[in-house]
Amino acid sequence: MILERQEEERSRIDFLELSEVGEFGLIEMLSRRVPPGRPDVVKGIGDDAAVLRASGETWLLFTTDMLVEGVHFSFSYAAPRQVGKKALVASISDIAAMGGWPAHALVSLGVPPHMPVEVLDGIYAGMQEAAADYGIDIVGGDTVRLPERLAVNVALLGAVEAGQALYRSGAKPGDLVFVTGFLGTSAAGLYLCQHPGAAFPEEEAGFLRSFHLEPRARVQAGRILAGSGKVTAADDVSDGLAGEMHEICRASGTGCLIRGEAIPLDARVRKLAGLVGEDPLAWALYGGEDFELVFTVPARDAPVLERALAAANVPCCLVGEILPPEKGICLETKPGEKIPLPRKSFDHFRADED
Amino acid sequence: MILERQEEERSRIDFLELSEVGEFGLIEMLSRRVPPGRPDVVKGIGDDAAVLRASGETWLLFTTDMLVEGVHFSFSYAAPRQVGKKALVASISDIAAMGGWPAHALVSLGVPPHMPVEVLDGIYAGMQEAAADYGIDIVGGDTVRLPERLAVNVALLGAVEAGQALYRSGAKPGDLVFVTGFLGTSAAGLYLCQHPGAAFPEEEAGFLRSFHLEPRARVQAGRILAGSGKVTAADDVSDGLAGEMHEICRASGTGCLIRGEAIPLDARVRKLAGLVGEDPLAWALYGGEDFELVFTVPARDAPVLERALAAANVPCCLVGEILPPEKGICLETKPGEKIPLPRKSFDHFRADED
Repeated sequence: MILERQEEERSRIDFLELSEVGEFGLIEMLSRRVPPGRPDVVKGIGDDAAVLRASGETWLLFTTDMLVEGVHFSFSYAAPRQVGKKALVASISDIAAMGGWPAHALVSLGVPPHMPVEVLDGIYAGMQEAAADYGIDIVGGDTVRLPERLAVNVALLGAVEAGQALYRSGAKPGDLVFVTGFLGTSAAGLYLCQHPGAAFPEEEAGFLRSFHLEPRARVQAGRILAGSGKVTAADDVSDGLAGEMHEICRASGTGCLIRGEAIPLDARVRKLAGLVGEDPLAWALYGGEDFELVFTVPARDAPVLERALAAANVPCCLVGEILPPEKGICLETKPGEKIPLPRKSFDHFRADED
Repeated sequence: MILERQEEERSRIDFLELSEVGEFGLIEMLSRRVPPGRPDVVKGIGDDAAVLRASGETWLLFTTDMLVEGVHFSFSYAAPRQVGKKALVASISDIAAMGGWPAHALVSLGVPPHMPVEVLDGIYAGMQEAAADYGIDIVGGDTVRLPERLAVNVALLGAVEAGQALYRSGAKPGDLVFVTGFLGTSAAGLYLCQHPGAAFPEEEAGFLRSFHLEPRARVQAGRILAGSGKVTAADDVSDGLAGEMHEICRASGTGCLIRGEAIPLDARVRKLAGLVGEDPLAWALYGGEDFELVFTVPARDAPVLERALAAANVPCCLVGEILPPEKGICLETKPGEKIPLPRKSFDHFRADED
């Protein structure tokens, strides 16, 4: 039944241009060609990282991310050091979402021939800073010519105790949905990067910009979630909460209800949004790059997990619950009022984004 | 002493633009920032792949390669399927050069928004073809927007028996230098791709083009070399024999003499070169992308290795010997006549290459 639906989508997609398909559709389409896997593959395409058997006690986590100048970052507001740091952190966050620890990175750079070497040196310095922060070794890479703009690809190897990896696919109706930290902070910071003239107190503006430019990955929180054995699904909030809930619900075969009023927003985010006439909830749902974790847990296990996170100084907030699939993916805008929550998210192929 | 020289180079490089530094200088420059490594890193930056401890019996091999449209390939002569296949084979060849077997790949695509989806589908089909040929699973990836041209990054995990990895760094004066297969074949094929009107018999032209467009990696030969325990240094010939000999000699602290007349050239390569007025030896030394293996072995161990390769139908040819470092890196143009062998090689940053 599911196979039939996929075939239908496949034939439809073949006649579309990439800009219409979008990133999510493309990865899905391509992944249908994958034949049955090697026996050492625990989990292939379709989660934050692949999971591979390495030894009896340890599974490998393997993930890759490409960042492109002018698409994912701009040197008009980001220092090379920040670009390098964030490129590594984005991949580390994928490992965190699987409950593992990061270990070894390979960095590929596509570089315009006349880019000053000090820019590359700054990028590399930022990567080494993040590598040192998270106990990673950068063990190699590739550097090639890319005439028009810089592209940075990070391939990251991590590990997790065998059997403890966190997937998107285990959420069950009745599970509660939590997020760590605050959402929308990175989008607010991006707004300030792109509107340097915005009349906003510099100290608060600096705080918000730093969340966008120098994010942190929730490795410790992911380790606590994996170690608890209670978490049924997890993802990092790299594409906005709406997109991640669609990922979790699709992988788990469920619906969900997210309570808009429960989504944790920093006071400075609300203040900036009010000042510039933006919706802070839209930043949280669709802004992306917060690199917080969203996870689901049976209601009876939630208190233990909340205490464990609190003990590690990881803020954690109940934002909704998992529902049967026929309930769809919904947002409670205020008590008693529900609307479907579209997945529209930070999607790098949409034409309106250049 | 070596450290001092590096510092001097470093300060010189900082004032140069990337186009002057070139790819090799850049990787070296950046790698100097790397702090002492994790204890599970057997070998970090500086060989075909990083070597990591995974379990008692097995080491991981980890490598990445980025290919850029218009720099490394062109759709004017390469089918999308061939581009995908070659992207994976280039990384597989790095694993072969370390004596290991390839296992898991992640593929990042930077894609212009209006690229037809069937092009991407073709690339992916070619990758899956190579993956099936070499027993690899493509376990994930990333797809992002790159406005001007396609970029393909492959990150590949392989493995080798603990202690058996082949490095560039163990060659000793007196060792003999061998290559598998024939060299310059890929460059001859590229010539025909770029000169479709060349008056050359189509059957032979097709053979040469196929070497450029659908190369194979020498995994089996690498396994034989690693299993022998006799090979002192190895590399794949991805950048031309001259560049690889510079790599081996620099890593090993030696010189070498390569005998030009001993370099194995396919008869069709000689014939084409004669017809179009090119030097087939230059194709072998500087053309690159042959994906053969070059390796060094003590003279007394060479016969056993030659027999083992012959038994596996891997052609293998003695092309020179390793010398003390003060002898430099030389080419014997004819018996008794030696010239320095410059490393000038397929270097993607040089301005004359666009």
